[in-house]
Amino acid sequence: MSKHWLIRAAFGSACLVIASTQAFAAPLKSWNDGATKSEIIDFVTTVSDETSDKFVPSEDRIAVFDNDGTLWVEKPLYTHAYAIFSEMKRQIEADQTLLTREPWKSVANKDFGYFEQLYATSEYETLASQLFAAPFGGMTSDDYAKWARDFADSFKHPELGVGIDELTYQPMVELIDFLKANDFTVYIFTADEGAFLRVLAQDLYDIPPERVFGTTVREEFVIENDEPLLVRTYRVDHLNNWDGKPRLIQKVIGRTPILAAGNSNGDQQMLQNTALRGGMSILVHHTDAEREFAYDKHTEKVMPLADKEDWIVVDMAKDWNKVLAEASD
Amino acid sequence: MSKHWLIRAAFGSACLVIASTQAFAAPLKSWNDGATKSEIIDFVTTVSDETSDKFVPSEDRIAVFDNDGTLWVEKPLYTHAYAIFSEMKRQIEADQTLLTREPWKSVANKDFGYFEQLYATSEYETLASQLFAAPFGGMTSDDYAKWARDFADSFKHPELGVGIDELTYQPMVELIDFLKANDFTVYIFTADEGAFLRVLAQDLYDIPPERVFGTTVREEFVIENDEPLLVRTYRVDHLNNWDGKPRLIQKVIGRTPILAAGNSNGDQQMLQNTALRGGMSILVHHTDAEREFAYDKHTEKVMPLADKEDWIVVDMAKDWNKVLAEASD
Repeated sequence: MSKHWLIRAAFGSACLVIASTQAFAAPLKSWNDGATKSEIIDFVTTVSDETSDKFVPSEDRIAVFDNDGTLWVEKPLYTHAYAIFSEMKRQIEADQTLLTREPWKSVANKDFGYFEQLYATSEYETLASQLFAAPFGGMTSDDYAKWARDFADSFKHPELGVGIDELTYQPMVELIDFLKANDFTVYIFTADEGAFLRVLAQDLYDIPPERVFGTTVREEFVIENDEPLLVRTYRVDHLNNWDGKPRLIQKVIGRTPILAAGNSNGDQQMLQNTALRGGMSILVHHTDAEREFAYDKHTEKVMPLADKEDWIVVDMAKDWNKVLAEASD
Repeated sequence: MSKHWLIRAAFGSACLVIASTQAFAAPLKSWNDGATKSEIIDFVTTVSDETSDKFVPSEDRIAVFDNDGTLWVEKPLYTHAYAIFSEMKRQIEADQTLLTREPWKSVANKDFGYFEQLYATSEYETLASQLFAAPFGGMTSDDYAKWARDFADSFKHPELGVGIDELTYQPMVELIDFLKANDFTVYIFTADEGAFLRVLAQDLYDIPPERVFGTTVREEFVIENDEPLLVRTYRVDHLNNWDGKPRLIQKVIGRTPILAAGNSNGDQQMLQNTALRGGMSILVHHTDAEREFAYDKHTEKVMPLADKEDWIVVDMAKDWNKVLAEASD
């Protein structure tokens, strides 16, 4: 028994050395040299170094990423929103009576006052239910996953003209890879529906479904003709934005991530939770009008906190020598 | 690059062969030879065998276990209940005014009519809120975890006279180990509060917090003096029993487990979900009055389904040569 363990340990170390050599060959190559890149690399290598007094055991090396605007393009609209609107348009074509009902009526008329009113009065769960749940009520989780896959396969970004796999930020994909090479466990916490992104994240980021979380729609479990089904209702039961992010992180991971990345006010509490407990928080700042979109909307709360709490602010125009990923074959 | 990959693959295979040899040396040694043991071993080895037409890739080799009555003793009371009642008694000693308020009043008087009434009228979430949430309202998640740890360290089972680490079923611990040796990812889905069991599961079963789920108490995220805190409220927001189990499994894993184990009506839907989708469901039947407790309460729904849907029924008296685990050093 002990002999087997020795052999396994020896082989294990050999595997690790080779893996590490590969991982450290050229981390973050789409990042320009400078303070941002070196601070990230220093942090990751230090917490992974057993001889460092800042060493963190691998089981606690947890990283969490927002998705829209952090891992991929969110302008002019979230991809999740494009998906929902295209499905609602298809439904309206099939059933004109939907034109008299919300949320279809507003989408058909391109009059978003109804949604803006819900937002203005802080009825966020109702708003999310109307967009994420209502158009898909009664659908099984399997059919929803198939719909998400079909949408992703055919989607072309209206302004950039590229498919879904070219909307991700190459530097952030490299950061995820670098973290994984250093035995981090990487999760996504999006404000979109988790069940939507979950279908795509394996291909986009090599992150499996059980590490992708977002807003959730209440489902019912039923058995029909000996077939177990999860059937979507018309109601969102967790809104994964603002304080919802650290609340869900605690529920599903039960540990505080030592690295967190986001880009807007919706990520504030997730980023504070990690930064104020001694971890590294990263704010992606959209400064690149040429290669992506430049904007500051929904960042007025997080920008001052980044400064006060010593987060890393990524200046896309300055820190990245490449922005969008190239499509895989 | 490709050379590195070849070397890694070669080393990886060597590691796997050695690991497999060790895992297959003597699986399930506390299980008596017979149909139950051999069906379980056959299933696990077949789905892990790349040459089998029933092979399942490791990422889909997911197993879920109930805890009370499946992995450890649940009689005469759930350990979670002992923990809650002992805390409520401590609170009453500190504050006698609690004697006039539910749920403390009923616990102090050992008159459970109040709880039975909530159960009889299907007010399960209120019942769970009164027991799981009310006594701990306002506590931080960190303090709650510390409380759970302290309770576990001092608890002695009132009838068996043993500590918490001798309440687990040795054969089930071996089953978990056997599954993990075959690259299964093993989760616990308990009806107890997940945040309670999560503190204990690493030591008891070598299962980390991010793979332990149960009933949840709504928490609020606040920052006080630059310290991020998750503060417990007085309300349960997910009841992890009956249909709640497959609903939460879908939310957190997003895949259907190919192996599920439970012991009572509360596990019905979780076991059906796996069995009816072609996986193996296991029902632990408490038949051993000598070494544990013999009972059939809360099994009238699952026993006929086990027969109809071809679940494995474990007859504890007959199938296990050892029941309780020995304390680790």
